[in-house]
Amino acid sequence: MYGILLKLAYDGTEFCGWAAQKNRRSIQDTLAGAIRTLDPRGTSPRATSRTDAGVHAEAQFVAFDTALHIPPRGWVLALNQHLPDDVSVRSARAVPAGFNPRFANRGKRYHYDLLLDRVRDPLERLRAWRIGWQLDLPLLRSEAALLQGTHDFGAFRSVRDVRPSSVRTMRRIEFEEQNRGRVLRVVVEGNSFLYNMVRIMVGTLIDVGRGKLPPGTVTRALAERDRRVAGTTAPAHGLTLEWIDLLLPDGAAEPWPL
Amino acid sequence: MYGILLKLAYDGTEFCGWAAQKNRRSIQDTLAGAIRTLDPRGTSPRATSRTDAGVHAEAQFVAFDTALHIPPRGWVLALNQHLPDDVSVRSARAVPAGFNPRFANRGKRYHYDLLLDRVRDPLERLRAWRIGWQLDLPLLRSEAALLQGTHDFGAFRSVRDVRPSSVRTMRRIEFEEQNRGRVLRVVVEGNSFLYNMVRIMVGTLIDVGRGKLPPGTVTRALAERDRRVAGTTAPAHGLTLEWIDLLLPDGAAEPWPL
Repeated sequence: MYGILLKLAYDGTEFCGWAAQKNRRSIQDTLAGAIRTLDPRGTSPRATSRTDAGVHAEAQFVAFDTALHIPPRGWVLALNQHLPDDVSVRSARAVPAGFNPRFANRGKRYHYDLLLDRVRDPLERLRAWRIGWQLDLPLLRSEAALLQGTHDFGAFRSVRDVRPSSVRTMRRIEFEEQNRGRVLRVVVEGNSFLYNMVRIMVGTLIDVGRGKLPPGTVTRALAERDRRVAGTTAPAHGLTLEWIDLLLPDGAAEPWPL
Repeated sequence: MYGILLKLAYDGTEFCGWAAQKNRRSIQDTLAGAIRTLDPRGTSPRATSRTDAGVHAEAQFVAFDTALHIPPRGWVLALNQHLPDDVSVRSARAVPAGFNPRFANRGKRYHYDLLLDRVRDPLERLRAWRIGWQLDLPLLRSEAALLQGTHDFGAFRSVRDVRPSSVRTMRRIEFEEQNRGRVLRVVVEGNSFLYNMVRIMVGTLIDVGRGKLPPGTVTRALAERDRRVAGTTAPAHGLTLEWIDLLLPDGAAEPWPL
């Protein structure tokens, strides 16, 4: 068998998320179907990150094994012919059979887009969370800065996340203005993320910025490690998996070029 | 009756265009339905610009008359509650009853987004025309510059456009790089546009830039005024109506603030 690593992009709007679920449209099943069309012996694809329903990806890394000896570039073209419009293979490279990118993950970057607008905007509706409230942006930024570094993020994960350790390192939390200041992008980079972590971080920052939660909430949440101290879980559709830093078997940091 | 002028935004993907068509989903019918829900005596909305199927709008101006005395801000909120996700009223102001924005139009700005990528990108698919060919960008830009100014654009309109004059003034044709150079935005501003004019201009520039048509095509098309000399009609989904410069009855150039 040959291993193939794919860089996948998708619009998460119409998917139930990465992971296969019975009677629902998952990215995993959709991709598995395209692989099987080309190679009935091809394995089910293994993703680095299990994105939730509605979450988008600019770069999700996925590996599978195949008995076919097709160059990576051929997989890009062939799979894209069998994939629907809302998911595509952006590039591919050869990896050893059995390679699981989940265990090669050294860090991820997400961005979360906030549309600062009192009125609905149809052209941003699928990619940004619209914030109609007045925000104290300096306060929001200073609270965000407190999330950087290594902390126990126990308050910033879904109660369904029962992994033993909730200590994580946030290397970077930054804001970028887009679309003439109408869209505020929160860029978050870290070694690893808990379940719903980015969405709870963003939701909490918004709750503080709009005055629903008091300044200092981030500090208290990090200290008390209690989900109830943090704020709202921001909706999925504002979140995009932007990049994954993979350690590849041959030591190359990025699975390029295509 | 009272006149109300609306600034409308929409995602054109699921519409047959502005104008009502039997058994099809138009923006005009959709908005008319929302108006009638609030005021059964409200008139059908009159748009400044009839956008085609698939074309988006950040700012389309539309007027209607109503017997209800509701402040403009109230119309924004009330109509948005009755409009689907892919269209919204961004702002509103009072105008004299019977005001027809089509006759107050002093100019329009469109943009056309090109995704320069050899591979499909699901996150850009609804808003940009993907160009997989290699483009000679300096050539494309120099051909575009020739379109600026006042010319007979007879070659750059659909053969279905039978208006007597095809002389128009293009005030501005400029390129903006977005998304780290992946998206090339063509911004076009003019006093008035022929049917399919922006799409034929963009399609012709791409044909020249990729070598399908020779350099000098723009000059020849302007001289010969023959649709067959110009190039492809670019697809609708890359086009967005960005702004309309309206002369309002009270002399204000912009129907703000909201």
